[in-house]
Amino acid sequence: MGGSLARAVTGRRMAERVTGWSPDSGEREAALAAGAVDVTVRDWAEAVEDADVVVLAVPLGAAVRLLPGVADTTGPEATLTDVTSLQRPVMEAAERSGAAGRWVGAHPMAGAESSGFSASRPDLYDGARVWLVAHEATDHHIRGVERLWRGVGGEPRSIGADAHDRLMALVSHLPQLVSNALASTLDGAGVTSDRLGPGGSDMTRLAASDPSMWLDLLDHASPVLIDALRTLGTELEELANFVEAGDMEAIDALMRRSRAWRSDR
Amino acid sequence: MGGSLARAVTGRRMAERVTGWSPDSGEREAALAAGAVDVTVRDWAEAVEDADVVVLAVPLGAAVRLLPGVADTTGPEATLTDVTSLQRPVMEAAERSGAAGRWVGAHPMAGAESSGFSASRPDLYDGARVWLVAHEATDHHIRGVERLWRGVGGEPRSIGADAHDRLMALVSHLPQLVSNALASTLDGAGVTSDRLGPGGSDMTRLAASDPSMWLDLLDHASPVLIDALRTLGTELEELANFVEAGDMEAIDALMRRSRAWRSDR
Repeated sequence: MGGSLARAVTGRRMAERVTGWSPDSGEREAALAAGAVDVTVRDWAEAVEDADVVVLAVPLGAAVRLLPGVADTTGPEATLTDVTSLQRPVMEAAERSGAAGRWVGAHPMAGAESSGFSASRPDLYDGARVWLVAHEATDHHIRGVERLWRGVGGEPRSIGADAHDRLMALVSHLPQLVSNALASTLDGAGVTSDRLGPGGSDMTRLAASDPSMWLDLLDHASPVLIDALRTLGTELEELANFVEAGDMEAIDALMRRSRAWRSDR
Repeated sequence: MGGSLARAVTGRRMAERVTGWSPDSGEREAALAAGAVDVTVRDWAEAVEDADVVVLAVPLGAAVRLLPGVADTTGPEATLTDVTSLQRPVMEAAERSGAAGRWVGAHPMAGAESSGFSASRPDLYDGARVWLVAHEATDHHIRGVERLWRGVGGEPRSIGADAHDRLMALVSHLPQLVSNALASTLDGAGVTSDRLGPGGSDMTRLAASDPSMWLDLLDHASPVLIDALRTLGTELEELANFVEAGDMEAIDALMRRSRAWRSDR
């Protein structure tokens, strides 16, 4: 996420200087060699002390851990933002750090199952919805973060932290775990993944995602996700019963409803 | 499937004449206007009586219903084949029709959630696995069907009818129903599909498939599909318990296993 954003910002000359930090020296070198950033630093404090805008493009747990230090190290006018898929924990970290007035949460709905700088793409955010959680931020900071995401092709829209997190539990975290569970079921049945066709391939693509990023999110999972997993488990059990009973009318009704829902985009 | 095959065969001049039949006059006209076929006929008997190869590119139920008539109408040397996702019912229809010696089941693992001639693509089968069920067919017919699919870019491979049908229950029919059930769960939670990001969008793409094609298949579903739906339902229930208990080790183990499975292609 951070690599793609840096490449988009640098490529469009949207900032005087882009400073990149990563705990991984290989990632820093790759970003510098690709011209994604103007400078890299080994110590994050160096990257943020003179920054106008700090983007914490790190997993949720790291964002929450880094925020207090970043808030202390940056100037009082610096905008703080992030790219995380759950906003309340970051929002609360910003509040605890006394930086709620200049924190604008951001979550671009883009990316793939791959991660790291080698997976970055300067056009990743073209046409992507970007949810912004303004909370207590002042207009100056909100406009700055909106400009950043619009500038790289994204489509920012405001949302509250809780509404955002509920939505992500359903449209992002649930599909991720379903993909893992489907892959696990196929694995358990002795099927190898080279047997997948286009449909099965799409349905298990997310299973290739890096678990480390997800564990952070799932550790903060909402009851909405737990309920949705159970609802879906029950739906599958019902489907098994319909198939077993040859109840094609019930299956037809389910397929028609879900087709109408999916086609209405 | 039939439209794409016709376009590929006609485009590569693989046959002297391609005759198209569909019960839908709009489909016939569209195929003729696009040059996908040389001739169209209203009555399927006219299409098959002089044919060297008859491809039943119709849903499973229609293939089973049409086979006896097609076997009677075609010459004794004509090859009969199909494109269906369950092979045993078609194989049994070929046996009942006395045509087992010239029937070679074929199932190309290609296609999308859209259907009809407007969704056809001449390159649909490029690189696609095509399962062939030879059963009692003689070499002449097997080689002909292999040549057809290789000619349009597919990669034919032999399989038994039951092994094929078990595999499809797992890698095709299960993912289809999971996509429907996921869409239904999101619908029930009040989420609209314009809220999906790339992951959720992929995971519900199959839910837009035409139910009519699927009901035919599900009406012949194997116990393998029923078991797999129940296994996956149980996996989701377990995942809900892990998330609820904050058991990140268990989730990590599941995600790592399914990532390794999916990445090993």
